[in-house]
Amino acid sequence: MCGVVGIWGAPQASNLTYLGLHALQHRGQESAGIVSSDGGRLFAHKSLGLVQDAFSQPVLEALPGDRAIGHVRYSTAGGGGLKNAQPIAVDYAMGSLAVGHNGNFTNFEEVRTRLEAAGSIFNSSSDTEVLVHLIARSREATTVGRVSDALKQMQGAYSIVFLTTDELIAVRDPHGFRPLCLGTLSSYPGLPGATVVASEPSAFELIGAEYVRDLEPGEMIVADREGVRSLRPFETRAQRMCIFEYVYFARPDSKLNGISVYDTRKRLGAILAEECPADVDVVIPVPDSGVASALGYAGRLGIPFELGLIRSHYVGRTFIEPSQSIRHFGVKLKLSPVRAVLEGKRVAVIDDSIVRGTTSRKIVKMLRDAGAKEVHLRISSPPTRWPCYYGIDTPSRNELIAASHSPAEVAKYVTSDTVGYLSIDGLHRAVRGEGPGRQGFCDACFSGDYPVPFATENGTGKRSLPLASV
Amino acid sequence: MCGVVGIWGAPQASNLTYLGLHALQHRGQESAGIVSSDGGRLFAHKSLGLVQDAFSQPVLEALPGDRAIGHVRYSTAGGGGLKNAQPIAVDYAMGSLAVGHNGNFTNFEEVRTRLEAAGSIFNSSSDTEVLVHLIARSREATTVGRVSDALKQMQGAYSIVFLTTDELIAVRDPHGFRPLCLGTLSSYPGLPGATVVASEPSAFELIGAEYVRDLEPGEMIVADREGVRSLRPFETRAQRMCIFEYVYFARPDSKLNGISVYDTRKRLGAILAEECPADVDVVIPVPDSGVASALGYAGRLGIPFELGLIRSHYVGRTFIEPSQSIRHFGVKLKLSPVRAVLEGKRVAVIDDSIVRGTTSRKIVKMLRDAGAKEVHLRISSPPTRWPCYYGIDTPSRNELIAASHSPAEVAKYVTSDTVGYLSIDGLHRAVRGEGPGRQGFCDACFSGDYPVPFATENGTGKRSLPLASV
Amino acid sequence: MCGVVGIWGAPQASNLTYLGLHALQHRGQESAGIVSSDGGRLFAHKSLGLVQDAFSQPVLEALPGDRAIGHVRYSTAGGGGLKNAQPIAVDYAMGSLAVGHNGNFTNFEEVRTRLEAAGSIFNSSSDTEVLVHLIARSREATTVGRVSDALKQMQGAYSIVFLTTDELIAVRDPHGFRPLCLGTLSSYPGLPGATVVASEPSAFELIGAEYVRDLEPGEMIVADREGVRSLRPFETRAQRMCIFEYVYFARPDSKLNGISVYDTRKRLGAILAEECPADVDVVIPVPDSGVASALGYAGRLGIPFELGLIRSHYVGRTFIEPSQSIRHFGVKLKLSPVRAVLEGKRVAVIDDSIVRGTTSRKIVKMLRDAGAKEVHLRISSPPTRWPCYYGIDTPSRNELIAASHSPAEVAKYVTSDTVGYLSIDGLHRAVRGEGPGRQGFCDACFSGDYPVPFATENGTGKRSLPLASV
Amino acid sequence: MCGVVGIWGAPQASNLTYLGLHALQHRGQESAGIVSSDGGRLFAHKSLGLVQDAFSQPVLEALPGDRAIGHVRYSTAGGGGLKNAQPIAVDYAMGSLAVGHNGNFTNFEEVRTRLEAAGSIFNSSSDTEVLVHLIARSREATTVGRVSDALKQMQGAYSIVFLTTDELIAVRDPHGFRPLCLGTLSSYPGLPGATVVASEPSAFELIGAEYVRDLEPGEMIVADREGVRSLRPFETRAQRMCIFEYVYFARPDSKLNGISVYDTRKRLGAILAEECPADVDVVIPVPDSGVASALGYAGRLGIPFELGLIRSHYVGRTFIEPSQSIRHFGVKLKLSPVRAVLEGKRVAVIDDSIVRGTTSRKIVKMLRDAGAKEVHLRISSPPTRWPCYYGIDTPSRNELIAASHSPAEVAKYVTSDTVGYLSIDGLHRAVRGEGPGRQGFCDACFSGDYPVPFATENGTGKRSLPLASV
Repeated sequence: MCGVVGIWGAPQASNLTYLGLHALQHRGQESAGIVSSDGGRLFAHKSLGLVQDAFSQPVLEALPGDRAIGHVRYSTAGGGGLKNAQPIAVDYAMGSLAVGHNGNFTNFEEVRTRLEAAGSIFNSSSDTEVLVHLIARSREATTVGRVSDALKQMQGAYSIVFLTTDELIAVRDPHGFRPLCLGTLSSYPGLPGATVVASEPSAFELIGAEYVRDLEPGEMIVADREGVRSLRPFETRAQRMCIFEYVYFARPDSKLNGISVYDTRKRLGAILAEECPADVDVVIPVPDSGVASALGYAGRLGIPFELGLIRSHYVGRTFIEPSQSIRHFGVKLKLSPVRAVLEGKRVAVIDDSIVRGTTSRKIVKMLRDAGAKEVHLRISSPPTRWPCYYGIDTPSRNELIAASHSPAEVAKYVTSDTVGYLSIDGLHRAVRGEGPGRQGFCDACFSGDYPVPFATENGTGKRSLPLASV
Repeated sequence: MCGVVGIWGAPQASNLTYLGLHALQHRGQESAGIVSSDGGRLFAHKSLGLVQDAFSQPVLEALPGDRAIGHVRYSTAGGGGLKNAQPIAVDYAMGSLAVGHNGNFTNFEEVRTRLEAAGSIFNSSSDTEVLVHLIARSREATTVGRVSDALKQMQGAYSIVFLTTDELIAVRDPHGFRPLCLGTLSSYPGLPGATVVASEPSAFELIGAEYVRDLEPGEMIVADREGVRSLRPFETRAQRMCIFEYVYFARPDSKLNGISVYDTRKRLGAILAEECPADVDVVIPVPDSGVASALGYAGRLGIPFELGLIRSHYVGRTFIEPSQSIRHFGVKLKLSPVRAVLEGKRVAVIDDSIVRGTTSRKIVKMLRDAGAKEVHLRISSPPTRWPCYYGIDTPSRNELIAASHSPAEVAKYVTSDTVGYLSIDGLHRAVRGEGPGRQGFCDACFSGDYPVPFATENGTGKRSLPLASV
Repeated sequence: MCGVVGIWGAPQASNLTYLGLHALQHRGQESAGIVSSDGGRLFAHKSLGLVQDAFSQPVLEALPGDRAIGHVRYSTAGGGGLKNAQPIAVDYAMGSLAVGHNGNFTNFEEVRTRLEAAGSIFNSSSDTEVLVHLIARSREATTVGRVSDALKQMQGAYSIVFLTTDELIAVRDPHGFRPLCLGTLSSYPGLPGATVVASEPSAFELIGAEYVRDLEPGEMIVADREGVRSLRPFETRAQRMCIFEYVYFARPDSKLNGISVYDTRKRLGAILAEECPADVDVVIPVPDSGVASALGYAGRLGIPFELGLIRSHYVGRTFIEPSQSIRHFGVKLKLSPVRAVLEGKRVAVIDDSIVRGTTSRKIVKMLRDAGAKEVHLRISSPPTRWPCYYGIDTPSRNELIAASHSPAEVAKYVTSDTVGYLSIDGLHRAVRGEGPGRQGFCDACFSGDYPVPFATENGTGKRSLPLASV
Repeated sequence: MCGVVGIWGAPQASNLTYLGLHALQHRGQESAGIVSSDGGRLFAHKSLGLVQDAFSQPVLEALPGDRAIGHVRYSTAGGGGLKNAQPIAVDYAMGSLAVGHNGNFTNFEEVRTRLEAAGSIFNSSSDTEVLVHLIARSREATTVGRVSDALKQMQGAYSIVFLTTDELIAVRDPHGFRPLCLGTLSSYPGLPGATVVASEPSAFELIGAEYVRDLEPGEMIVADREGVRSLRPFETRAQRMCIFEYVYFARPDSKLNGISVYDTRKRLGAILAEECPADVDVVIPVPDSGVASALGYAGRLGIPFELGLIRSHYVGRTFIEPSQSIRHFGVKLKLSPVRAVLEGKRVAVIDDSIVRGTTSRKIVKMLRDAGAKEVHLRISSPPTRWPCYYGIDTPSRNELIAASHSPAEVAKYVTSDTVGYLSIDGLHRAVRGEGPGRQGFCDACFSGDYPVPFATENGTGKRSLPLASV
C-alpha cells in the first residue's frame, strides 16, 4: 500500500502536495517524498517517517514551482530504507523524470533480469526502478509515448504519477486495481484551475480541491502547458478494483469509484449481522477500522453499540517494547478495554480481518480480562486465504490462519466463543449494492481468483542487494 | 493538567513507570520524566515531548532500581521548557528527594516571596519548587514529617508523589481536587506485591497492576521497607473532586472515585438529550472526547449515531502550518467530515465544551461545507464561564465566550443553528447518579464557586524569570 | 579549567559573547552557555559540547540585549552533564542572577553542609551553586554587597562573572589564581565604549575589543548604568597566579598579567636546554602546546627544529574507539609521526608535562616505530607531583608518576633514553624574567606549597546526587 | 579531491576502513562512506559530514565482513549532497558492485550523453556513475574485464577502488595523476596478510599496515580468493603525477611515489628563499600547510622561524557567521596573530598558494593590525593561473588572481609590501631533487600544459538535475 498525489498548475504546489500526503498518511508511514518543478528543473526531498516529520517549512521552500508529485510508502518487511523511498527521480535522455507508484508489478523480476543482461544498473530493490529503465530505453519520441511503451511491458497493479519539467502524467492500470482520482483546484481568482490527482478524494478535501471523477482503468491523464487530456494507451480489460480498499485501507470519508467507504462499511456490518448474528448484550468495534461496520452490525440487530475498546493516540513507531523480563505483566499498548462497557456482558466485537490470528487472540483475552462473559468475534470480510500480489503486504499462505483453519478452529485459537466471517457474496453485495454478480472487483485474497499472473513466491529475494541504509 | 505514577518494590520500576506514563499520556504531552532509585541514590531523566520519544531502552537502563516516580506535563502557554519539567530532583539536608506534582498551589506566589526574603533561590517558575524549599527548611526529623509540614503551608489542588532513596510518598490534597489511585502489583511469584499509585487506574491496566481504591482526600500513602501505611496529616475538608475530569480529561476506560468515566459521559449525553433535544436526522460526536456523550444523546432520542467526523491519527506537534498564502484553501488537518453521513442531513454534533468558540466555528463550517442542512451544537457540560485555578490551563474570563454570551449569541458566533448546554444540575446528576445535591465536586469553572481562595490574576507573571531554554 | 566572558553595553551582546567563548574554547569543551539581558529579564541557553555546536543563529536571537555573560566548561571525570553547565541562572529575592565561574572553592563541602542544615536545596554537584545560596541568604542590601559578603565566606580560586538585569560584576579572587582581563569595545561611533571581561585577552582580539589590563587580585569590577567602577571588597593577599597557565593552559597569543605566553614558552624551552641539554640531531615538539618551547630549546642548542609529529585536525569527542579486537593494530588517532624527520635520527621531543606517563609512553613508541634512533623526552615544566585544588582537573597523588618516580625511573617507564624536566627555579625565571624569588605565582602542583587550605581528598563524593542526565 | 581506502582479507574490515578514512580526512570533509562484504552480499553506509560523525559503533557493526572500501569526498561548490556521496553501490547483471573514485573523468559529459541516448538513467551528477554504466553494459565476461573495458572509454584522472562480493579491485589511471598506494596488514598470527590500498600511506600507519609501494600509472591490483595480482590493462602513458599534492593536499607525513611530502615542502621553502629572499626579522607560516616550507625558507636565510599565527582547533562546518551588523568588529575565527612575535617586526609569511587573493588580504591585515612593520608574502608554489580538470576544485580562470595580475599587482591587492612566488623550475627541482627536466608531473594549474584533453567550461552544468537533497 502506498499513496500518491500529483498537482499541475497551482502556486506552491509542494505545500499542497504535502497537505495531500498528510490526508493519505494512512496509506503509508514508512517514508514520504515530494518532487516539484518550476519548469526549469526538478527538486526532490525524501525522508523516512511520517509526512509531518519529513518536511519542514524550509524544506518545502526548497521545492519551488507550480507542479509536484508526492508519495507515502507503506512499511514492508524487507526492502525498506531511504533507498526505496519514492518518488524516484532520475536523469535520462529526455531530461529529468520523477515517479511515484502505488501497486506492484508482478513480472518485475523477469524484466529486471532482462534489463540487467542489457546493461542496466539498479540502485534499489524497488519494482518501480524497472519501469524507469524501460522508459529510458524506449525508442518513442515523447515522454507520453515512452511511459505508455514501458507500462505495456509491465503486468500487475499500478496507480502511478510521473513528473517532468513540462508535464504531469497519471496512469491507472488496465484492471484499475488501485484507486486514483482526478480533481480540480480553482480557488485563485483569475488563474485557470489546477489539475490534481490523488489516491483518494480525501486528499482533495484537505487542500480545497474539487473531486471530478475516478480515473478509469487503463486511463492516462496528461497535464501540460496546453491543458489536460485523457489517453487510452492500453487494451481494454475488465475492471478489477481491489475490494479490500473498502473493507480496510481507504479512509471512511473517501468515495472510491463513486461508492462511499463509510456507507459500504455500514453495509458490511449489516449483511454480516444477517449472515452471522450473535446473541449478545453489546456490539463493540476494534477501533478505528471496525467502527462503521460495528454500527451497521448493531443497527441491523437492534443491539446497543458501545466503544468497549479505546485506542491510544500516542503509540508511534518509536515506542519501546518493554523488556522481556516484564512482558508477563500483560502489556497492552494500543488498545485498552472499557470495563464499564464489558463487565458481565455478552460481547460481539467487530474487526475488519484476521491475518495470523495473534492480534485477535490478544484482543479476546483483553475483553475477557475486563469481564466480558462471552466474546463473539465477527469479521466484516471473508476469510483471508490468499496472499495479495498487487500491492498489499500480506504474509505467505502458510501464515494466513484462515487458509488452513475453519471458523470454529480459528475461534479455538483466538479463544473466542464463536467466530463469524462475511461471505464473499455478502462482501460484493455490500460494496456494489444489490445487483447480481461479482464483476468489477478483485477479491483474490479471499477467493484465490487472481486476475493477473504473478511470479512464484520463490522467485523473489534471491539477489544480493546493497544494504538500504542510504 | 498533569499525570503522575509511583512504584515501590517492583524490579525494573522505571520500565513499569514508563508504561504507566504512556497510559497517562493524554494528561500531558509537553514533557515526561522519571526518577528511580536503587536504594543508594536517585537517577533522573526528563525530556520535552511524548513519553515514547523521551525514553529509549538505554535511558531506561540508566534508571535502575525497584522504586520510581514519573510525571507527564501538560503544555501550558507560559512557563514551559525543560526547566519546568518534572519530577524535580534535588539534594538537601536529608539526602536526595524527587517530586512529581499534578495540580496547582494557589498561594505559591506569596510563599515564594516569603522564601526569597529568607534567602531561597529558584531555578524555575514552577509552583512545585516552592514546596521543595518548604520541605528543605522544615525542622521535622523525618521526610514524612517534613512533607506534611510543607504541604500544610500550601493551599490548592495537588495529587503528588515523592521519592527518596528509602520511601515512596503519595499525597492527595484535603479537597481531593485531582484524582490519585492506589494499586498493587503481585505478578512475581515469591515476591511481596509492589505498591503502585497513579493519576488514573488505566495506568494499572497497562502494567498488569490491580486497582485497590482511590486515595481519600487528605490521605498520605507511605511505602518503605516496613510496608505500606496510610496517614492523615491534614485537617478534614469536604471533598471537591474536579468534575471536569469526568467531562473531558480522564480516559473513558478509567473509574475515578468509583465512578466510570465512560458511563458518566453516556449519562451526560442522555441528560443533555432531555434538556436540549434536537430534531435531527443524525447525531455525531466531535471525536474522540465526544463519542460516549453522543452515544448517550442519540440513544435517549432514538436518533441514529454516526461518525460524521474522522480524526487524523497522525497530527502531532511538528505539523507545519501551511504558509499564509495558501491558507484560504481551507485546510482541515485534524478532523475531516464524512460527506456520506452529512449530506442533506440535519445534524446534532456533540462536543464536551466551548472555550473561545473558534474551534466550534470551524467545525460547524466544515459540517455545512460537507452538505449538512442544519447543524445543532450540543455541549455535554454547562457553559464554561470561570477560569480554573486548580491545575487546568484555561484562559482568563474575558476570553471565555460563555462568560459574556448567551447560548443564542454563541450559536450566532459559531454559525450553528442552535447551541445547547447541559445544566449544572444535569451535570451533577450525570456524575453522581440520581441523588440530590452538588456536594463532593468542584464545578468552579461552571459556577464560579471556588472552594479554595487564590491570588488574583494580576498577581502572577510580574517576575523576571530566566528563559526556560535549559 | 573553564573560561568566562562578560559584556556590558554592546548591541547583540550574546553574539559577541559567543565569539569570545569561541576564542576561549581551549579552556573547556564539555559545555557552553550564555545568559543575556535586555534590562528587563534574563535569557539563558546552555548545551553540552563545543561553542559552535551549542549555539545557532536562532538561539543567539533568542538571547537579546546589550549585556551578557558566557562560560565554557572543562570536561571533568565526575560531575558533568547539563545540570552542571554554567552560567547558573536563578531567581531570588533581588530578582534574577546568573553566574559563570572559573576556579574551585576549596571549602565548598563544608559550606554546603551548613547551608543544607539551614534548609537549602541543591540542583547540581557544582561548587558554584553554594555561592549562589550565600548570595541569596546575605542580608546586604545590594547585589554588590551580597556578592562580596558571599565571596568572603568562600576560599579558593575564582575568576567569576555575574549578570543581573542591571549590572555586570566580575571578580578575581584575592590570590589571583585564575586570569581575568578587562577590555573595552569602542567600535560603534556615537556610542560609549562597552566594557568587556574575559579569561584571556585573546577573546578581545576576536571581537575587536581593546585590552585594558588584567584585573588585580581581589578586585571587583562593576559595570552598570552609571559606568564602570573598581572595588576592593577583600583583604589584601599575596598574588599567587597559576604558573601552569603559562606552561599549558593559556593560548600562546595571550598575555597574562602583562607577560606573553608565547615568549614565556620559548624561554621555558631555552632554560630547559641549559638545564637538560640533549645531544640530538633534531628537536621536535608534541603539538600544539610544545611548539614554542621546542623552538626555544632548539634555538638555544643550535639544533634543527622540525615538526616530527603531526596532529590531526579532525579528532573530536565523537570519535569511536576501535573495538577491542583490533586494538593491537596500534591505532594512533591524534598524532602521527613524520618518518622523513625521524628516521635514523637522535630526537629530543618537547612536551609540557607528564601526568600519568601513559601518553608519553605511546609517543615514545610511535617515534621509535618511525625510525628514531634515540628518543630524549624533555619537559618544559618541573615534575608534576601534587594535585591542584584550585580549578585544574588533576588525578590524585598516587596517579602522578612524578610523585613517586625519579626522572630515570620515568624514562624507564615511558621507554625513552632520557627524561629531563625543567627546575622550579628555571620555571619561575622563564615566567618572570631574570629577577630573584618565586613570589607572585602558585606552583603547588610542582612544589606542594599550597597557598590556600583545602578539604582532604576523602571529603568529596560521599553524597547521593541525582543523575546529571538533565 | 577525495580519498579512498580498500581492504581485502582482514576481520572487521569496515572498522579498519573507518580508521583509514580518518587518516585521509584532510582529502575530503563533505561526505564519508563505506561498503563492506561478507562474501554473500554488500553492506553500505554513507553520510554527509566528517568520518567520525558519519559512523558509530552500531553502524560499523552493520557493515560486516573481511573486505571493504571507503571514500571521503571533498566539499565542492555544486553537485554535493548525499546523492553524490560515495562509494556508489549498485546491482547489475554480474551481481553487486561498489565504487569509490578520486579524480575526474574529463570526457564524462560526452559519454553520459551517449549512454542516455542508449537508455541509461542517472541518479546523480557524479562522473563516477557514468563509469558504472559502462561496466554494466560491457560484454566482457568478468568484473575485471568489464572494469578494464569501461575505464578504457574514460579519459582523465582516477585512483579508484571497486568492491564486489568476491574481489577488491584498485586502479590508477595511465598518467598516475592521483596517488594510490599498496600495503599489507599481517598482524594476525596464523592468518595470511590482508591487502590494503589507500590514497596515502598515512592511512596505513594508523591501522598498523605496512607500506609496500605506490601503484604504478595504469596498474590494476586485483585481490580475490586466489591472492593478489597486478594487471596492466591500459596502453603505456607518461606519468603525470599531480605536483600540487606535494605543495598542499597530501599529509606531510606521507610519502608519494617514494618522495617525502615533508622534505619536499622544506625544499620548496629553501628554493623559494633563494629565488625570492626577504630582508625580514622573522619568518612565519600560515598554519598548518605552510609550516614545513617556512622552516625551509627560514633555515636557508638564517632568519628566526616563529609561530606568528595560531590556528583554532575548533572551527568546523557548523560555525555561525556573525551577523552582518557586527561584522565590522573584524572577526577572525580560524587564525589569530601572536602579537609577541609580530610587534614591530618585519615579517615574511609563507603560504602554499594564492587563489583569489581574498584570504591573503585578510591575513596581511591581521599581521599589520598585530604590529608587523612590514609584511612580505612568499608563496611556496608558482602563480596559480589555470583551472584543474583532474579532480581539484578550482575556480574558473577569471577568478584566479594570478591569471591576470603580476606579483606586484597581487601585492597591491593583498596589501603586502611584496609578494614572491616560487618558479615552475624551482617547484620541479624541489619535488624531484636536482635532476634536470620536468617530466613525470602534471603542473597544468601553473603552466597550462594539460596532459589530457577536457571539455570546455561551458560544456558542464547545462543539464536539469534533481536536487541532491536525498
